[in-house]
Amino acid sequence: MKDYQDYTSYFNGEWVPYSQVMVPPHDRGFEVADVVFDQGRTFNGVPFRLEDHISRLYRSLKYMRIDSGLSPQEMTEICQEAVQRNDHRRSEVGDFNINPFVTRGPSIEGPATVCVIVKPLAFYTFARFYIDGAHGVIVKTRSYSSDIMDPKVKHHSRANFVLAELEARDIDPDGLPIMLDLGGNITEGIGYNVFLVKDGVLKTPTDRNVLQGVSRKVVIEIAGNLGIPVSEEDLQPYDIYTADEVFFSRTSPRIVPLSKVDTRPIGGQFPGPITQHLLAAHSEMVGVDIVDQALHYAGIEA
Amino acid sequence: MKDYQDYTSYFNGEWVPYSQVMVPPHDRGFEVADVVFDQGRTFNGVPFRLEDHISRLYRSLKYMRIDSGLSPQEMTEICQEAVQRNDHRRSEVGDFNINPFVTRGPSIEGPATVCVIVKPLAFYTFARFYIDGAHGVIVKTRSYSSDIMDPKVKHHSRANFVLAELEARDIDPDGLPIMLDLGGNITEGIGYNVFLVKDGVLKTPTDRNVLQGVSRKVVIEIAGNLGIPVSEEDLQPYDIYTADEVFFSRTSPRIVPLSKVDTRPIGGQFPGPITQHLLAAHSEMVGVDIVDQALHYAGIEA
Amino acid sequence: MKDYQDYTSYFNGEWVPYSQVMVPPHDRGFEVADVVFDQGRTFNGVPFRLEDHISRLYRSLKYMRIDSGLSPQEMTEICQEAVQRNDHRRSEVGDFNINPFVTRGPSIEGPATVCVIVKPLAFYTFARFYIDGAHGVIVKTRSYSSDIMDPKVKHHSRANFVLAELEARDIDPDGLPIMLDLGGNITEGIGYNVFLVKDGVLKTPTDRNVLQGVSRKVVIEIAGNLGIPVSEEDLQPYDIYTADEVFFSRTSPRIVPLSKVDTRPIGGQFPGPITQHLLAAHSEMVGVDIVDQALHYAGIEA
Amino acid sequence: MKDYQDYTSYFNGEWVPYSQVMVPPHDRGFEVADVVFDQGRTFNGVPFRLEDHISRLYRSLKYMRIDSGLSPQEMTEICQEAVQRNDHRRSEVGDFNINPFVTRGPSIEGPATVCVIVKPLAFYTFARFYIDGAHGVIVKTRSYSSDIMDPKVKHHSRANFVLAELEARDIDPDGLPIMLDLGGNITEGIGYNVFLVKDGVLKTPTDRNVLQGVSRKVVIEIAGNLGIPVSEEDLQPYDIYTADEVFFSRTSPRIVPLSKVDTRPIGGQFPGPITQHLLAAHSEMVGVDIVDQALHYAGIEA
Amino acid sequence: MKDYQDYTSYFNGEWVPYSQVMVPPHDRGFEVADVVFDQGRTFNGVPFRLEDHISRLYRSLKYMRIDSGLSPQEMTEICQEAVQRNDHRRSEVGDFNINPFVTRGPSIEGPATVCVIVKPLAFYTFARFYIDGAHGVIVKTRSYSSDIMDPKVKHHSRANFVLAELEARDIDPDGLPIMLDLGGNITEGIGYNVFLVKDGVLKTPTDRNVLQGVSRKVVIEIAGNLGIPVSEEDLQPYDIYTADEVFFSRTSPRIVPLSKVDTRPIGGQFPGPITQHLLAAHSEMVGVDIVDQALHYAGIEA
Amino acid sequence: MKDYQDYTSYFNGEWVPYSQVMVPPHDRGFEVADVVFDQGRTFNGVPFRLEDHISRLYRSLKYMRIDSGLSPQEMTEICQEAVQRNDHRRSEVGDFNINPFVTRGPSIEGPATVCVIVKPLAFYTFARFYIDGAHGVIVKTRSYSSDIMDPKVKHHSRANFVLAELEARDIDPDGLPIMLDLGGNITEGIGYNVFLVKDGVLKTPTDRNVLQGVSRKVVIEIAGNLGIPVSEEDLQPYDIYTADEVFFSRTSPRIVPLSKVDTRPIGGQFPGPITQHLLAAHSEMVGVDIVDQALHYAGIEA
Repeated sequence: MKDYQDYTSYFNGEWVPYSQVMVPPHDRGFEVADVVFDQGRTFNGVPFRLEDHISRLYRSLKYMRIDSGLSPQEMTEICQEAVQRNDHRRSEVGDFNINPFVTRGPSIEGPATVCVIVKPLAFYTFARFYIDGAHGVIVKTRSYSSDIMDPKVKHHSRANFVLAELEARDIDPDGLPIMLDLGGNITEGIGYNVFLVKDGVLKTPTDRNVLQGVSRKVVIEIAGNLGIPVSEEDLQPYDIYTADEVFFSRTSPRIVPLSKVDTRPIGGQFPGPITQHLLAAHSEMVGVDIVDQALHYAGIEA
Repeated sequence: MKDYQDYTSYFNGEWVPYSQVMVPPHDRGFEVADVVFDQGRTFNGVPFRLEDHISRLYRSLKYMRIDSGLSPQEMTEICQEAVQRNDHRRSEVGDFNINPFVTRGPSIEGPATVCVIVKPLAFYTFARFYIDGAHGVIVKTRSYSSDIMDPKVKHHSRANFVLAELEARDIDPDGLPIMLDLGGNITEGIGYNVFLVKDGVLKTPTDRNVLQGVSRKVVIEIAGNLGIPVSEEDLQPYDIYTADEVFFSRTSPRIVPLSKVDTRPIGGQFPGPITQHLLAAHSEMVGVDIVDQALHYAGIEA
Repeated sequence: MKDYQDYTSYFNGEWVPYSQVMVPPHDRGFEVADVVFDQGRTFNGVPFRLEDHISRLYRSLKYMRIDSGLSPQEMTEICQEAVQRNDHRRSEVGDFNINPFVTRGPSIEGPATVCVIVKPLAFYTFARFYIDGAHGVIVKTRSYSSDIMDPKVKHHSRANFVLAELEARDIDPDGLPIMLDLGGNITEGIGYNVFLVKDGVLKTPTDRNVLQGVSRKVVIEIAGNLGIPVSEEDLQPYDIYTADEVFFSRTSPRIVPLSKVDTRPIGGQFPGPITQHLLAAHSEMVGVDIVDQALHYAGIEA
Repeated sequence: MKDYQDYTSYFNGEWVPYSQVMVPPHDRGFEVADVVFDQGRTFNGVPFRLEDHISRLYRSLKYMRIDSGLSPQEMTEICQEAVQRNDHRRSEVGDFNINPFVTRGPSIEGPATVCVIVKPLAFYTFARFYIDGAHGVIVKTRSYSSDIMDPKVKHHSRANFVLAELEARDIDPDGLPIMLDLGGNITEGIGYNVFLVKDGVLKTPTDRNVLQGVSRKVVIEIAGNLGIPVSEEDLQPYDIYTADEVFFSRTSPRIVPLSKVDTRPIGGQFPGPITQHLLAAHSEMVGVDIVDQALHYAGIEA
Repeated sequence: MKDYQDYTSYFNGEWVPYSQVMVPPHDRGFEVADVVFDQGRTFNGVPFRLEDHISRLYRSLKYMRIDSGLSPQEMTEICQEAVQRNDHRRSEVGDFNINPFVTRGPSIEGPATVCVIVKPLAFYTFARFYIDGAHGVIVKTRSYSSDIMDPKVKHHSRANFVLAELEARDIDPDGLPIMLDLGGNITEGIGYNVFLVKDGVLKTPTDRNVLQGVSRKVVIEIAGNLGIPVSEEDLQPYDIYTADEVFFSRTSPRIVPLSKVDTRPIGGQFPGPITQHLLAAHSEMVGVDIVDQALHYAGIEA
Repeated sequence: MKDYQDYTSYFNGEWVPYSQVMVPPHDRGFEVADVVFDQGRTFNGVPFRLEDHISRLYRSLKYMRIDSGLSPQEMTEICQEAVQRNDHRRSEVGDFNINPFVTRGPSIEGPATVCVIVKPLAFYTFARFYIDGAHGVIVKTRSYSSDIMDPKVKHHSRANFVLAELEARDIDPDGLPIMLDLGGNITEGIGYNVFLVKDGVLKTPTDRNVLQGVSRKVVIEIAGNLGIPVSEEDLQPYDIYTADEVFFSRTSPRIVPLSKVDTRPIGGQFPGPITQHLLAAHSEMVGVDIVDQALHYAGIEA
């Protein structure tokens, strides 16, 4: 892990080194996971689709009835300033993640604990997937139904993600979990959305039971630009196993191609042509060769 | 709130003031609520049923596959020592809560963050319930089903508890939530189990869909000693509304009698005779008049 | 149908002939089935277990938050007086049904429409079942789950009972419906509970998903007196098909033995020995030969 | 309430004052809510989309297998005549509701009880919503699933609507209920459909789990004419809370804008621009200023 | 039944008379129904959409992780050769069914039992439906949910189809079952998909909970060619009962018009105009008058 | 595998070598798994609890409405004769399995295919479990709910057992599957029931959602004789992970102790004391040292 203890963070109105951002156990954010957050990234040091991340953060806040004490505009500016304050570190690390979070604070009346962390993008965690493909595992632990906790809210209350992560490793040491809802439909992974290609159509679960991924939205938008038909629909493991291509959309790597799911190889060639097409168009959109950047900063020879 | 910033806590092998117990945001205990805990109390400064709390904590750890690095025996001794180290504060506050927690730590391989907090028992939060009764509200947010996250595990991943708490207040400013499972059965509150009395029988949900409450077990044991028949069975809101008596079992207050649920008054007189009987026998069991102690330390004239 | 237009009914504080009991369409009892009721019977003109029926009626009222404007004691006395006022008709008809109902009235604030109807017991509708057995049909329409409408409340909002009745006739012109809950468990019929005997044990669904039948309670009590073991448990169609005996408990006939369910003959001999034993003990309990009375007033030669 | 006891109604083949329309308790329409109905309105005394209401009534009849004894054409003509017979009252009240209902009658073989009621449109119940907005409350009681009773049938068996109504008031004295299906999806209110606007798209639940509202269909049609994109999809409370605009479609008021749901204010300004646009286009379609008419007859200064 | 004991089949690498195709009880295909299959037909002796059938067979194999030992191309050629080897029998019987199946074999490691059977098309089982209409019955036994066994896999493990078949006959001696999923949605029959027409739109369940029928796909394709709008959506019994037309798509008869469902007559005229239109266009597509051929070989005068 | 091709089997009224027992593909037992069966064993060549196996077989037949053409008494005698006819082989193999099955036959009207197979007991498949323990794996594929196919019926339609078997191996090469029902409760394995011991109490799922195992019943009976308290209740994975002992009951090995479930070691010592106690008492009951016999015939040194 790239160390970022001395990166500058926003914390309850102050700018401090990350190492000074600490939460006491009686903060509800720790005690009952009463905390929402978001996670963005930069390209060439410029926050990408920051407005979408802030908008989703405020939807999460509204759902949970947490008052951050800041307007969306103020939060946006803090995120931008946080990137600026760390920009001198960018050449070493390539790009940044931007991670605002808001807890309800020490009591149900608040006041909220508000933090924005900027850290180096962890290319080493995903760069090899562009070459070898990631491995998906459809786990047995289920995702939340909306009458327990709406999956469209982005929060830290994720014990079931933990179980999913462990279960995926039981089956494949490199396994990344894919979760089902209580009705057996594909939902999402732990921080990424799922896409598949079948007979030329790009398919992904509806946003009924998944996080409304910003990267997911970008992929759909790019596909639209490329004339690739897109269908949001209920999908089941069968659809994954028999797909031509499968990939995840995720903030940092944007598109993670999969080579295997549940020990079954996916499709014919790897990576699939539509996945490659989307990745190329995405690189063009952001002015960064996404794969090259990842391999470079992860120290992998392409 | 009684201040306990200078109480002594165990934190990753050291004894520190509580004010120094802090969790960094990248600890999985904060980031994905990858943390289990337990909560006990003392009577006259002596931990009550500590072995049951430690045993449950280790069942939670086993379920979550978190390695605390400590044996149950070691954890027990730390809890006992933590009480000893704060015992000089007891005369001011009456009794203590004992709160061990274990996070998986900064990465999926750990090492665990282990902490034991001792703090003054918050009598003021519940003392008035012995006199006026608490108000229950059956909320719309549902509790976890076991294929999402087993409700028998005691953890911090409780966003749905937060929603429940807010919803209860929407209906009654003093409302304490009672949650249903996905099948519409009564489960538990946010840290307490639910009991009712109907035609002389004490009823409570089975431990299929609730935390295996230590206080719950004690109530069942006392009822057995008193010859009160007990039935663990699936219950629905109808059973609560039409009960003769309703109470919660909970670590600190032990037994919380309810006077209303969902704006409907419960039973005839308050508190009900069996509730009173159980409370009296419980006081006798622990050698402390539970109600008097609470009223005294909460500063309420009986 | 025995005519009872001139029987005396209680209606909103007055005693009138039944023919004058009429509900306007804007009464919520008609408009949205906002009405609860109960149904008892007499033996030798004496109301049987009237206190249990009144108690259940008031549980239904409490659940629905309808205020009848009468205390349980007053309601009991009205039921008794209603029987007295019609007792001169008893010799012709054998015994009576007692049917109180309470609607919320013309608006959500009431005032309630309160009525107690006494009518001749309809022996002709069930007398032949003691000889030939009734036919059960497990229908496809499901009973209410408690998060839609608790099945323990006795009310008129029974469109699904109507569907069940029609479906049973599709399969057997004499078919009486048995309904499943959403989980596939046996619940009840349309006004009767279901019992079966297997290897000497009397089994019936728990009262989680059925009306808390007064006759059901009496059957369990009689079985207890006779030393027949009783188990309240979740049952499925398999248990019915492979039972030794099956019967319904119901207010008027008390015990309705079944000879067939879903075109499968039940058990070996008809009626089964335990069913017969229970019926005999019931007759003794009430001082009326239940079968003889039914056959007599239905005009059937035994 | 405007009195309509002397309005003329059709009742089992005769024209009678409404005060003479009365249902005896043994009619299955009262006893087991074995009754279907519809509800339309006039504009300037002319029935609006009457053919759609009659068509839906006959779909309800077919589902329930009730034979009204009348052809759809005959039923249409009766509705039209009923309006004619009361047209001399229109100047006082503005416009009428038209409410046909059909019960199965006194036995499962019928004959049906058939009635058509015309009454003054109750502007006073909704006029203020155009100015202040209505308040929605997402209640805990769930709507019917189609294997219990299909929500597309329009009938009186609505005990769960009653519970919903009471629960909404528990949270907000002016609360109008919004119900979820058993899977946690938004369905409908008690007699109205739900719409929301998000990022310029008009969204409403599919007709899988709601009544096929005639007003709902009209709103979709108007939106189509105005070029507003419409999506019928599964929606959850999150979508309501984070919507830009929310409104109900309902027979009498046509479009009811909401200002709050579950204590959360909706969107930015009230009423929202698309809601206003739809209302204006609807007024134009029917040749009546819907808002002005309501305010006028409700005696409210705009 | 046309006898086909002497037709030539492919069986584990050899060409044998069908009478020699036999499975021992310890083959997993028999012991635990560990077997997938497909079913096609010829027109004028030419396999129709064979590639689609083979593709679906290989999707089934992939889902079940059965290794047939043959490539799709080899399997296709075997099917074609099987038809050729029996082509001399075609003039007697009109056309053929082609039925490949693959069991996992005697142990979990295989080797697979592979068979391709060609047999005469059983026109006599469906020809009369074109004239009188088939009768559908919505049965109470439910179809598999995808977390038990994905309905998109074509396999022999069909005990619930057996129950459905028996239940349909309970209601109508000619009844063909239509199954619901656990949520109460229409799925499919036992080897056929369900279509309905309402207000000019052709509707059929999505392929979430049904077999991805090859005939279903052809019907959708023909409708597209004819400009008939098609909607794949969740449907419930209400939609069937109130439809204008209902038909099944099925391999041998292609389109089976229904005249009744659950004792309710469907629509106005029989067969419906869109059903007729689709059948005519299908005949044209395959160069065979589908209805005439069926009547002819079934020996029915049109 | 011990070869048993020349063992004598009963097949449709005749005694033939097993190698001649073959099922044609169009037998419904193969085509749609329309077949029920049972599986017993001998001790010292004497069928054990044969009456219970035959009784269960006939319950399965009644549920499926298959007519075997034989009375239970005749079936019993055939099973006994089948053992007799092979008894000369017993000294080589130790003991036998007895496996009757009945398919509905070639058409829905039958006639049934009836077979009774006797084969050597496969000690080698389980003997090592007594020493090292078996490994359980809780799989993601779910068992049937009773509205799809009642799990109390013993049949061959087991595609989900196949998936479970493969999934268990994905996690542990020696993994034996444990399945959950749709509500997340433990059900059974693929041919065995699940027991656990916690705090001295023997627990097992109720027979609501599992096969009514004959071995299960024997274990409960033995526990009763030994004074070990037994509870049939809903259990979840938590209960397994935190149990003191876990074992399967199964026809051939009777009791299979587990040492691991889902990679978590079970309890303290292996095998657990209550498991050992039950095994010893079982050996005594049947007059065979169950463990010694298995080790001996499997060729394992104890």
